[in-house]
Amino acid sequence: MDVFEALFTRRSIRKYSDEAVSDADVETMLKAAMLAPSAMNERPWAFVVVRDAEIRAALSEATPYVKMAAHAPVVIVVCGDLNEEKAKGHWEQDCSAAIENLLLAARGLNIGTVWCAVHPEPERVGNVRRILAIPEHVIPLGLICAGHPAQPFAEASRFMPERIHRERW
Amino acid sequence: MDVFEALFTRRSIRKYSDEAVSDADVETMLKAAMLAPSAMNERPWAFVVVRDAEIRAALSEATPYVKMAAHAPVVIVVCGDLNEEKAKGHWEQDCSAAIENLLLAARGLNIGTVWCAVHPEPERVGNVRRILAIPEHVIPLGLICAGHPAQPFAEASRFMPERIHRERW
Repeated sequence: MDVFEALFTRRSIRKYSDEAVSDADVETMLKAAMLAPSAMNERPWAFVVVRDAEIRAALSEATPYVKMAAHAPVVIVVCGDLNEEKAKGHWEQDCSAAIENLLLAARGLNIGTVWCAVHPEPERVGNVRRILAIPEHVIPLGLICAGHPAQPFAEASRFMPERIHRERW
Repeated sequence: MDVFEALFTRRSIRKYSDEAVSDADVETMLKAAMLAPSAMNERPWAFVVVRDAEIRAALSEATPYVKMAAHAPVVIVVCGDLNEEKAKGHWEQDCSAAIENLLLAARGLNIGTVWCAVHPEPERVGNVRRILAIPEHVIPLGLICAGHPAQPFAEASRFMPERIHRERW
C-alpha cells in the first residue's frame, strides 16, 4: 500500500470481524512502532499484547471509552518505561510516535485500530496497571484495539489551513 | 512508496542538499499531520512554517541540538494550542502523532527530516516562543527540520523482542 493511502485513509476502527490477527502481523506492527524516533534514541517503550478474552474483558472496563477491547481479537497496551528515559519528560512524545507508527503499519496490513487514551488519567492508569500487573516505573500510555475491520476505511477531511502560520505566528 | 518502506527506512536526516522543498510538498506533509488521531478528535495542533534564513538562524540557537535549522530549507514548528483541548492533558500525545505523520509523509516524498524536542524544556520553549511570537496559550512541542537529504535513508535495527510482554507484564 502506498504510504499516502495509509496516511490519508487511516481512521479509528471500532468494529471488527471474527478474522484472527496473525502473530506475524502483530510483530510487523510492533517492529514499526519500535522504529519511531525518540529523544536521544532512548526508546522507552514497552508493549503488552493481550489476546486472552478474560483479560480483554477486564480492560474493556478500565476506561469509559474502551468497550471494544472485549471484541477486538488483539489489544496492545503501549507503555513508557521511566527507567529507560535519558531525556526526562520525553517518554510520552516517544511512545505517541511509536503508537502512530503502529497504527499506520496496521493500516498497511488492512487491520483496523483505535487508540484509546490511558495516561494521564490516574484512574485509567491504575486500572490498566492492576489488570496487567504493570510495575510502578512503567506507565501505560495508550490501549490499542486491533482487528480486521467490519467498517470501511475512508479519508477524512481535516485540513485546516488556518492552523498554518508563515515565518512567525 | 510502500508504507512499510516509509516506516522502515525513515531515519533522522540532518544534512540537506540545496534543492528547494516545494510549497506543495510542505502542504502534503501538513495535510498528513492533520490526519493524525487525537483525543476526542480535538486536533489541538498549529504549525509555523519557517523559510526565512534569519529566523531559521535564530531558531538554530534556540536549543542545543538544532544547529541544522540554519541549513534546512524549511523548518516546521509543531505546537499545541491549549485553547483547543477537549481532553485536558492529551495535546502532547496528539501533536506527537501529528509529527510522526508529518515525518512519514516527508519520507514518502524523499524529503529528510529531524525532530528536535522543544517542550518540556522551559528554556527551549521560551526561546522558540520569543523568536516566533507564539502566544502564551500555544506551546511549541517540536521543531522539524526538512530538506532533500544529503545522506542516505536506511533501515535501522531497533526491534527489541524483550520489550514485548504477552497477556500480562
